[in-house]
Amino acid sequence: VVPVFFENQIRLAAETLDAVSEMEEAFSVYSRGRAVVPPVGEMIFDNPPGDVHIKYGYIRDDDIFVIKIASGFYENSARGLPSGSGMMLVFDQKTGFPLAVLLDNGFLTDVRTAAAGAAAARFLAPAGVQCIGVAGAGTQARMQVEYLKQVIDCRRVRVWGLNEEELRSYRSDMEEKGFEVETTRNLESLAECRLIVTATPSKEPLLQAGWIQPGTHITAMGSDTAEKQELDPHILLKADRVVADSLDQCQSRGEVFQALRQGLVDLNDVLELGAVIQNPGLGRQDPNEITVADLTGVAVQDIQIAGAVWRRLETKSRSMTGGSQGG
Amino acid sequence: VVPVFFENQIRLAAETLDAVSEMEEAFSVYSRGRAVVPPVGEMIFDNPPGDVHIKYGYIRDDDIFVIKIASGFYENSARGLPSGSGMMLVFDQKTGFPLAVLLDNGFLTDVRTAAAGAAAARFLAPAGVQCIGVAGAGTQARMQVEYLKQVIDCRRVRVWGLNEEELRSYRSDMEEKGFEVETTRNLESLAECRLIVTATPSKEPLLQAGWIQPGTHITAMGSDTAEKQELDPHILLKADRVVADSLDQCQSRGEVFQALRQGLVDLNDVLELGAVIQNPGLGRQDPNEITVADLTGVAVQDIQIAGAVWRRLETKSRSMTGGSQGG
Repeated sequence: VVPVFFENQIRLAAETLDAVSEMEEAFSVYSRGRAVVPPVGEMIFDNPPGDVHIKYGYIRDDDIFVIKIASGFYENSARGLPSGSGMMLVFDQKTGFPLAVLLDNGFLTDVRTAAAGAAAARFLAPAGVQCIGVAGAGTQARMQVEYLKQVIDCRRVRVWGLNEEELRSYRSDMEEKGFEVETTRNLESLAECRLIVTATPSKEPLLQAGWIQPGTHITAMGSDTAEKQELDPHILLKADRVVADSLDQCQSRGEVFQALRQGLVDLNDVLELGAVIQNPGLGRQDPNEITVADLTGVAVQDIQIAGAVWRRLETKSRSMTGGSQGG
Repeated sequence: VVPVFFENQIRLAAETLDAVSEMEEAFSVYSRGRAVVPPVGEMIFDNPPGDVHIKYGYIRDDDIFVIKIASGFYENSARGLPSGSGMMLVFDQKTGFPLAVLLDNGFLTDVRTAAAGAAAARFLAPAGVQCIGVAGAGTQARMQVEYLKQVIDCRRVRVWGLNEEELRSYRSDMEEKGFEVETTRNLESLAECRLIVTATPSKEPLLQAGWIQPGTHITAMGSDTAEKQELDPHILLKADRVVADSLDQCQSRGEVFQALRQGLVDLNDVLELGAVIQNPGLGRQDPNEITVADLTGVAVQDIQIAGAVWRRLETKSRSMTGGSQGG
């Protein structure tokens, strides 16, 4: 019998994890070439429009392999339903047997994405950030800031969004979580922050190169396709240090891809996040540097977070069914 | 909450289905170009050796899409564990939401494979078969014969296997199911049967062309890779009618592939099973014809069987939780 875990159980287990450390481990393993990540499977639907992605793989000499299914059906929201959905499946790498079905509805993808932003900030953000600038007011705009709590002290946020309604909702939610929130409709004002996170599905550059001041770190996590883009690619030219979560993926999607195809960046000058994590000397070296982290999302993050959550859930269910208090 | 069904429930539901008709529908839909089946996802493991395949797709204008995960870890048996494992996942084609997790441990793959053999025999086997010849004594060697019950009257089986032990076990199991079973270690004697099913993982031809008599139909279902082979490819040259489950797949795997690459068969002369099902005039036309069906396994079969079983399970669980007897 294969245990099946639902979103509420998964949320509780994820709270007990150090997801940022898990992501640091994942990127490090990936950059050492220890992760096996085959091409993503895809199904595209027309009526109604929707897409399904199957991401899967494993870490060599690990116990498990993971298959993640994620869907986006954007007309769901007109019916009052979430557009995204998904699950992660954990299997035994030694027998092929399923170990757990994690019916997380995409929650673990949100966690690994937010935790990756925090991992990037740990190695790239300057010291003494006074305000976090956030472009976007959706789920990741919230979760990125929450996970940053673990790596920087700043609790002030300046958030830019498309309309006052989503900004009000963002402020109220984040104030409840202990942040001091200032909303703005002026994108340029985000550039006054020394740490900026872009978390939008934009297909046009939002932040302009001329605005960006010395001593700024930008994590761009919204752009995960060849079409999406949040940064003026001249920001990458201007930056002292450009880090991508995957040197492989950044050649076909994300901010680095946009800068590469305009000849503004040389791939040889782009660092991989896992290499920085292994060798922090490759991270920020001067308070006045401009640094950019381009996060497109890598399957090794899914493998790592699913494995970590599953181990928590399994330990817990074992201790509930048979263990003694001390065991 | 996504319902999860286990193997015992799935077995009971599958018994209430007409799996042969479901497969006829699946092949027919496939040959009409109504099935969308992306390339199979694959993971290969070395230590211990194992492989995992992810097959997925959907039928246009259907309600669902299906993702199947199947693994084979052949050292499991040394540990007393089954080598194969797997599950099928059913999703809503209009929202992307998961509808059901079918933890079938590969059982539905066995059903759809056996039912496909019966569908092929319905259109290709001669009338008045007196004995079914079976090469192999494993799960499919049993299930193919069981599913043939639905399309031919013959209950006599002559089975060839590698050793007396597996043959004794086969005979005892199949006699319990109402068959009269004769075991043999002489492969050639299978050619005395007018209907032969090959259900082995052989990588060398088992049946030789010189043995095959007029009025014989052969269903070769064991060979599903570029390496496996059960038939002397000259059998396909000698045959009056060669039918493949997929004209696409038979160019890279199975018996037709072996014959094509030796120039013994022209792809234009190979019929697709779904075309025969739609137009039975393309099937056997003369009692003396030699016919061959080459079944490599097509994802549309998984889509169809998973959908059919899920609909049964769903109806049942609805009627148990809220329905009235008459509803």
